[in-house]
Amino acid sequence: MDRKPPAAYFDHAAAAPLLPEALEAMRPFFTDHFGNPQSIHRFGIEPARALEEARARVASLIGESSTARIVFTASATESNNLAVKGIARSLAAKGNHIVVSAVEHASVMSPARTLEREGFEVTEVRVDKYGTVHPGELEKSFHPGTVLAAVQHASNEIGTVQPLAELAAACRRHGVLLHSDGTAAVGRIPVDVGALGVDSYAFPAQSFYGPKGAAALWLRSGVRPRSLVEGGIQEKGRRAGTENVPAIVGMGRAAEIAALNLAAWSAHMARLGGRLLAALPERVEHIILTGHPEHRLPGHVSLCVEFVEGESMLLFLEDEGFAVASGSACTSKTLKASPVLLAIGLPHSVAQSSLMLTLGKDTTEAEVDRFLEKLPPIVERLRSMSPLYAKYQRGEDPYATPESSCEGGH
Amino acid sequence: MDRKPPAAYFDHAAAAPLLPEALEAMRPFFTDHFGNPQSIHRFGIEPARALEEARARVASLIGESSTARIVFTASATESNNLAVKGIARSLAAKGNHIVVSAVEHASVMSPARTLEREGFEVTEVRVDKYGTVHPGELEKSFHPGTVLAAVQHASNEIGTVQPLAELAAACRRHGVLLHSDGTAAVGRIPVDVGALGVDSYAFPAQSFYGPKGAAALWLRSGVRPRSLVEGGIQEKGRRAGTENVPAIVGMGRAAEIAALNLAAWSAHMARLGGRLLAALPERVEHIILTGHPEHRLPGHVSLCVEFVEGESMLLFLEDEGFAVASGSACTSKTLKASPVLLAIGLPHSVAQSSLMLTLGKDTTEAEVDRFLEKLPPIVERLRSMSPLYAKYQRGEDPYATPESSCEGGH
Repeated sequence: MDRKPPAAYFDHAAAAPLLPEALEAMRPFFTDHFGNPQSIHRFGIEPARALEEARARVASLIGESSTARIVFTASATESNNLAVKGIARSLAAKGNHIVVSAVEHASVMSPARTLEREGFEVTEVRVDKYGTVHPGELEKSFHPGTVLAAVQHASNEIGTVQPLAELAAACRRHGVLLHSDGTAAVGRIPVDVGALGVDSYAFPAQSFYGPKGAAALWLRSGVRPRSLVEGGIQEKGRRAGTENVPAIVGMGRAAEIAALNLAAWSAHMARLGGRLLAALPERVEHIILTGHPEHRLPGHVSLCVEFVEGESMLLFLEDEGFAVASGSACTSKTLKASPVLLAIGLPHSVAQSSLMLTLGKDTTEAEVDRFLEKLPPIVERLRSMSPLYAKYQRGEDPYATPESSCEGGH
Repeated sequence: MDRKPPAAYFDHAAAAPLLPEALEAMRPFFTDHFGNPQSIHRFGIEPARALEEARARVASLIGESSTARIVFTASATESNNLAVKGIARSLAAKGNHIVVSAVEHASVMSPARTLEREGFEVTEVRVDKYGTVHPGELEKSFHPGTVLAAVQHASNEIGTVQPLAELAAACRRHGVLLHSDGTAAVGRIPVDVGALGVDSYAFPAQSFYGPKGAAALWLRSGVRPRSLVEGGIQEKGRRAGTENVPAIVGMGRAAEIAALNLAAWSAHMARLGGRLLAALPERVEHIILTGHPEHRLPGHVSLCVEFVEGESMLLFLEDEGFAVASGSACTSKTLKASPVLLAIGLPHSVAQSSLMLTLGKDTTEAEVDRFLEKLPPIVERLRSMSPLYAKYQRGEDPYATPESSCEGGH
C-alpha cells in the first residue's frame, strides 16, 4: 500500500477484524485440541467442552440462558436459509403462505423465491420511506394459511432498526412465526430475543469482531426447521457436519467481550456516526440521508449523493484511503440498483448514488474528520463531469432521462 | 492429562491436527487482511487474491487445472448435501431416480432419503463382502429415469477403495451422473478427478491436515446443482455467504503441502498399517479384518474383535492412551450398529465389536508397537467378562441370542 494515504475502514458491515482475544482463544483448537468434539476418546473432550462454553457465551449475548436453542452454522446467510426454508418446510402441512419484508437481505429473499417454486405463496410487505415495516401492514398481509414472516432486526444498508417487538406481537396474535435476521443489529445494539418475542434469530460472529466461518441461529423452544445440511448428529441433528471448533470458540470469546463492551462501543459509534450525519448535509449539497433519522443503528451512515454514481465515489474515496460501500449493487458486480433503496421509494438514478459507512469500535475522530474534509471535493469533481448535474443546473429534470448506464448490464 | 499414558492418535478419520504451515498462512487473514473478498476497495484485494490462489491449489490436489470447478463449502457433509440434493433437484425434469451405494456416509444417505420424500425414487446398490460396489450391480440398478448415482471413493469405516473409474464409465454409458465422496481418499491416495471420470467430488480440508470449516465440492463443467445456501454471489452463486477466507487459505496451503508429500505420507501410513494388519490376527484370536485386503486405504486398519463390544475396547484403549474409533455407532450416541458393517454381511453382534484405526503421517512405529502389545490383554480381559465368549467356549452358538443390550436404545 506504499504511497497510498492512510486507510480508514468504514465498511464494518462487509467484514470486521478479529478481536486479538478471540484469535488467542482459537489457537489451541487448531493444534493441541484439534480433536473432533464427537469423539468419545480424550481428544474429543476439550473440543466438546469448548463448544458448549462458546454456545453459552453466544446465547448470553442475545439474552438467552439455554444453550439448547443455539445452532451454529457457517454464516448468517446459512442461518437465514436454514430458518426461512427450514421453518416454512416444517410447517407446510399447516399452511403454505409466508411473508417477507421488502427490505430483506438476499439470503432471506432468495430462499423465499425458492419456497415459491416449491408451491409456497410469498407476500412482500412494503415499508415506509424510512424502510420501517409497520405492524399493521404486516398483519394485513396475513391470512389463515400464513405460517412464517421474516423481518430483519435492522438494515445493513440504511441502518433502520425495526419495531421488532411490536412486529413479533402482531405475528403472535395471528399464530405466525417470526424469523429475524440480526446481522446488522448484533454488536451494535443490545439484543434480547426473549423480550423481542421473535421465534428465530440469525447472526454471524463477524458482527461483533468474531471470526468468519461461524454464525448462529437461535430457535425458540419448539421451533424445529427441516435441516439443510443433514446426515450427522451435530447440533442435535439440526445442522450436520464436523463443527468448526476454532471458529466457534472464537465466536464465543468475541461474544463474551462484546457483551462487556457493547454499551461503550455503541456510544462511541453513535457519537461518530452522529457527527457524520449532522455534518454531511452541511458540507455537500443535494444529499439525501437514507433510513430512519432516530431509530437507526449507531455508527451507521447511509446517504445518496444526487447526480453522481456510488461506484465512482467509492473509487475516488478509495484513492484517499477510505473503505466504504455503496448500496448500489454495481459494487457487487450484478449492476442492479439496490432493492432496498427502491423499496423506500428512491428513483433508480438516486439509488445508484448511494454511499454506506459502517463505523466500528476502533474508528477514530480523525478518520471521520478526514472523511468530512475529503468527500466534498470528490463530489464536486464528479458532479462537474455529471450529465445529470448539468441538466439540473440548466433547470431541467435530471431524472426524466433513460436510466443511467449502470442499468445496462443485466 | 497428568498421569495418563502417552497419547497415540489413531483416529485421523475423525479429525487431524492442522499443519503449522497452514496456520501460518491463515494468520494474516484474521487480522491484517480481514476484509471481505467481495469488497471492491483495498481491503478486499488480498482476501480475493488469496481465495483464488487457494482455489487453484485445492483444484491441483485433485488433478484439476480450472479453478472454476471448485466450490468451497464448510464441510464435506455440506459438499455431499449440495451434490446429492442439488444435482438431483437440478435434473428433476429429466428423471427422478437416484442410486446410492449401501456403504455411503450419512451425509449422502440422509439427503437421498430427503429426495425420496420429495418424490424421487432411491435405489440402494448392494456391495460385496469387502464393501466393493461392482459396476455390473450399479448398471443393473439403472433405468431410463436414473439421473444420479453416488458412490464414495473409499470407505472411512472399512478402508475399501472403490473401482471408481470403472463405476464412472458404467454411469457414463447410461447417461447417469456420478457423485463421489472423497473424504476418506483425499490425502491418502492420489486423486485425479479427470482420470476417474466422476461428475462431482467432495472432500474436506481435514483430510490433508487443513483446518476445520473448509471443504470443497469439485463439479465437472456443466454440472450445476441447485444451491442449498443461497442469496449471494459468492462461489459463482453456487454457495452464498461470506467466504471463510482464513480457513480456505489454510486449506489451500495444506493442499499444496499434501500434493508434495502425499507419496511419502502414503508409503509411511501403508507400512505401519500393513504391520498392524499382519500382526493383529496373529496376536488376537477371532479377529475379522473388514474391508478389502488389497484395494484399501494406506494406514487404515479396521477389524471386528468377536465377543467384545467395540465401545468397551475403545474405553480400555483410551485408558492406555490410544484414540481409536469403533464403527459401531454406539460411539456416536445413536446406539445403532454401523450400516456399513451390516451391508458387508456381518451379523449385528459382530458389527458391534468393530475397531477402526486411521493412522496419520506422524504416527510412529513405537505407537504401533505399543498398540500391538496393549490390545491382546484388553481383549482377553473383556472376553473373560463376555457372555458371548462363554457361550462360544461352551460350544454353543454365541450369536443365537437376542441382540446385545446396545441395540435397546432406539
